Amino acid sequence: MSERILGGTLSEKDVNQSVLLKGWVQKRRDLGGLIFIDLRDKSGLVQVVFNPDHSKAALQAAEGVRTEYVLEIKGKVVKRAEETVNPAMGTGRIEVLATDLVVLNKAKTPPFLIEEETDVAEDLRLKYRYIDLRRSTLQETFKMRHRATQAIRNFLNDDGFLEMETPILTKSTPEGARDYLVPSRVHQGHFYALPQSPQLFKQLIMMSGFEKYYQIARCFRDEDLRADRQPEFTQVDIETSFLTSDEIMEMTENMMRNMLKEVKNKDLSLPLPRMPYDEAMERFGSDKPDTRFGMELIHVSDIVEHASFKVFRDAIESGGKVSLLNVKGQAAQYSRKDIDKLTEFAKVYGAKGLAWLKVNDGELTGPIAKFLTDEEKNGLIDRSAADDADLLLFCADKTAVVYDSLGALRLKLGKELNLIDENQFNFLWVTDWPLLEYDEDSARYFAAHHPFTMPVEEDLDKLERDPGSVRANAYDLVLNGYELGGGSLRIHKKEQQLKMFDVLGFTKEEANEQFGFLLEALEYGAPPHGGIALGLDRIVMLLAGRSNLRDTILFPKTASASDLLTDAPGDVSQAQLDELSIRINDGI
Amino acid sequence: MSERILGGTLSEKDVNQSVLLKGWVQKRRDLGGLIFIDLRDKSGLVQVVFNPDHSKAALQAAEGVRTEYVLEIKGKVVKRAEETVNPAMGTGRIEVLATDLVVLNKAKTPPFLIEEETDVAEDLRLKYRYIDLRRSTLQETFKMRHRATQAIRNFLNDDGFLEMETPILTKSTPEGARDYLVPSRVHQGHFYALPQSPQLFKQLIMMSGFEKYYQIARCFRDEDLRADRQPEFTQVDIETSFLTSDEIMEMTENMMRNMLKEVKNKDLSLPLPRMPYDEAMERFGSDKPDTRFGMELIHVSDIVEHASFKVFRDAIESGGKVSLLNVKGQAAQYSRKDIDKLTEFAKVYGAKGLAWLKVNDGELTGPIAKFLTDEEKNGLIDRSAADDADLLLFCADKTAVVYDSLGALRLKLGKELNLIDENQFNFLWVTDWPLLEYDEDSARYFAAHHPFTMPVEEDLDKLERDPGSVRANAYDLVLNGYELGGGSLRIHKKEQQLKMFDVLGFTKEEANEQFGFLLEALEYGAPPHGGIALGLDRIVMLLAGRSNLRDTILFPKTASASDLLTDAPGDVSQAQLDELSIRINDGI
Repeated sequence: MSERILGGTLSEKDVNQSVLLKGWVQKRRDLGGLIFIDLRDKSGLVQVVFNPDHSKAALQAAEGVRTEYVLEIKGKVVKRAEETVNPAMGTGRIEVLATDLVVLNKAKTPPFLIEEETDVAEDLRLKYRYIDLRRSTLQETFKMRHRATQAIRNFLNDDGFLEMETPILTKSTPEGARDYLVPSRVHQGHFYALPQSPQLFKQLIMMSGFEKYYQIARCFRDEDLRADRQPEFTQVDIETSFLTSDEIMEMTENMMRNMLKEVKNKDLSLPLPRMPYDEAMERFGSDKPDTRFGMELIHVSDIVEHASFKVFRDAIESGGKVSLLNVKGQAAQYSRKDIDKLTEFAKVYGAKGLAWLKVNDGELTGPIAKFLTDEEKNGLIDRSAADDADLLLFCADKTAVVYDSLGALRLKLGKELNLIDENQFNFLWVTDWPLLEYDEDSARYFAAHHPFTMPVEEDLDKLERDPGSVRANAYDLVLNGYELGGGSLRIHKKEQQLKMFDVLGFTKEEANEQFGFLLEALEYGAPPHGGIALGLDRIVMLLAGRSNLRDTILFPKTASASDLLTDAPGDVSQAQLDELSIRINDGI
Repeated sequence: MSERILGGTLSEKDVNQSVLLKGWVQKRRDLGGLIFIDLRDKSGLVQVVFNPDHSKAALQAAEGVRTEYVLEIKGKVVKRAEETVNPAMGTGRIEVLATDLVVLNKAKTPPFLIEEETDVAEDLRLKYRYIDLRRSTLQETFKMRHRATQAIRNFLNDDGFLEMETPILTKSTPEGARDYLVPSRVHQGHFYALPQSPQLFKQLIMMSGFEKYYQIARCFRDEDLRADRQPEFTQVDIETSFLTSDEIMEMTENMMRNMLKEVKNKDLSLPLPRMPYDEAMERFGSDKPDTRFGMELIHVSDIVEHASFKVFRDAIESGGKVSLLNVKGQAAQYSRKDIDKLTEFAKVYGAKGLAWLKVNDGELTGPIAKFLTDEEKNGLIDRSAADDADLLLFCADKTAVVYDSLGALRLKLGKELNLIDENQFNFLWVTDWPLLEYDEDSARYFAAHHPFTMPVEEDLDKLERDPGSVRANAYDLVLNGYELGGGSLRIHKKEQQLKMFDVLGFTKEEANEQFGFLLEALEYGAPPHGGIALGLDRIVMLLAGRSNLRDTILFPKTASASDLLTDAPGDVSQAQLDELSIRINDGI
């Protein structure tokens, strides 16, 4: 009886036990001279009854109690009368008859109710995060995050990996996203940067001979935020020596299978499907395809290349293409107005418009039908396997625009039309990525992943001749349309790394100034190595069935990178700035 | 044969096996037309023999091979001839007869030899950290760090704790050590701070109802560095709700026992001894006593308070004290010159000098003997249990100076005289800490631990009347003279926290501006809570028998907080500063 018991664990087998409970008042009800309190602790809820026949003192003490008071209660477990059993409650067949009550702490009325689902404004919930976190849905999410993390760790530990910590105060490298900077006090005018990932350190760990490294690593990017971005995020960071990309993918698959079994009791059948980047773009208009439903892109340039519809012809003649989505059976459901809305949506992704046709008694109807010959119409029907009542949505533009807008439209329609089975976990690998991406504005190539990615062996000779066609020895893991993360083999020879920097437009001096330590390390016995990094926050978000990263991060920041609870970032004193020898620009 | 095998794991039972090895050339010897290579991988070393009778091609390939080349070798395990068995090598009874050799990467001659113990300058080793880390002692240290970390995690997971991540981009709080600051780009003129510890967040986690939290947390302090400090360090951070300090200490003890068993196969007998702060200071002159040896402080103020030796009298009359160390049997070993050196050492700790006496045929001799009466001499001999050949070293000063200098001197002598059993792990708790420390310069009290520490219940009423005498409900865990960490119960009521801020000299406005969110959270049902934080780097340092934290941190920083490998902190571009709206002060 002196040991505290978690209320949510009590059941009929505890009847007649004396118990000591500690927890929060979820709800208090007065009923016929009795007081009922739902007491909440980390295990859940239990009903406590204050009855004057049992303890007048406890009843009197309970009268002063309000929601979210913290209580210590002594009492006895009793069976509920059959008519008061609450089957919706885990402990609904019993209750605790209170003999003593101590108020450990009082509480003001919370700014919002602590309920499972809530429509309270997010800003208010973030300001009072410690109240919001008491909701059972968030409690469950963070228990799940814990279980997922431990499952991943246990798998890697058993596989001979060492967990190792890399620095947070590192050197700024201009390649990649924007760094968070930290002014140095000792070396005035110099700055540390918070790591965007431990990429170079994990490569150095391989050069240190450790062979198998992992870390649940905090990473930082000072970017403008979207719903699925946070200024600091956590990745499962892995690096290995001497393994092939197939071996790294296989290890990762086993790790994910293990985790999914542990956390969701779901079986994942391996090996996971693989899809080359080009195929993913062509079929799904996305490098992270959601394969839980069909409605793939259908390419019809060859059918309409001579059509009298100028929009089609122009797109093809200027090197683009014409593609469509077949929205099966929805012709009647989408009015001209509805299609206008879809067009507005597609414009966000660069499309100039959407052409459309409907299938009616085997005939194509719609504004552009008159520009198509019968042969073209039949070709379209054949290619898109169109049936009566189907709606065909066309995009004609540069290839990238066609993929982006039809890819996004496909996802939107998939959700709208309930084509997605939310209980499915569709993992797949996207492989054969381009090594480089050409940027028109700066007229140079950028690394599609990062500048340390190994090119595919047979493309090596094209690196100088035709850099855009070189594929990377890289692989991304995709789940339900989200990129969980990606990896690659890394360059482990100095000459290759130098050539890569050269292709990226670095002068020798720039390469040496920024990455001299890496180039030097490659000369002292760097082993072949490669790895992967997976976004833990996003994994938990998908496991928990949430759609917002903020639900999976304990103390998240807003879209403007503020912590509304502690009010960070904040002012600092002039003395602090003086010590760092920095000033804030005037006019702020 | 297609599966790579770790060379260091081979033994006689593998004889006649074909193996595929990958690793680094530790050593190469040419001998009578043969080449011998010690191949190193993460499991250790194995000898590979290149014999022209077995494979001419492999031998030829081996001729170009140098130290630290990365090789792939195929071969067959054979038993060594009895006379070539190397018992010092784990794989010393076998060797691998090579049939194929592929050079995976070449290596320049390393800047220093990779040997178990090294006297190469540390700066060079830090610049080439990835080479230094290949040494077996460092490899073992990081394997030990991994095992210690996992043992701690497994214990806490099994005990129902959730591992949770708190932010790195937080709010600057002026109390405590100096913060590292991070300028915000979005909120110009505002700054984040890197956390000195997750203290407030873990308290908020308790207010969120999670009850048992832990994190292997990165912490940051921008302090001038000593051998056992680093700008970023890692702590095992723990917080619990509803537990007493005894329960938290018991849980911590079990965790440490478990870890010590797992990592060192050592049994720790529990409960650990506890010593009040006052006793630790009086007996050992230290709040983190090394109890592996005696030579405790002996206090003799009462004996010498009327002595004609003015130094003694003055110290006592101005409120200080006279104490001594009895250095047993060392009278002859310490010349006047040696004692002068000890005096210089004591001066670093504030002592003005050291008086001394030696015991010779039952008589006290030495420069101050003539100032002492027989009664005083006998009193000193009795009190210090002095025998022939003992050396008595006196310090007479303010109490704090006496403790500091004799405490430090005791440790120095303990080491010099080999009084310390390096295989012992002497844990103890130091309890009953003062809550507050008075700072003469600023004429105010500071929190001895932090401002959220709960006072001992029976001292509560003295908080306003006599703050200096209030004890904290706090406990430090000490191992072999090092503070491993400490914890406390925390204040969970708003009025108490306000009173604490008041005693610390905060105005209401200052308290609200800096800690308003905490004060508010205390009003919404904050449970009683408390916890502990232990320095992981230091734990590993002591487990590994090292004396420098840099040996336990993978990529450590120097005493001037530089990373010599990547050359951080470094320059950043004007564009980066402009985006943050900060400038570097002129003249730098």
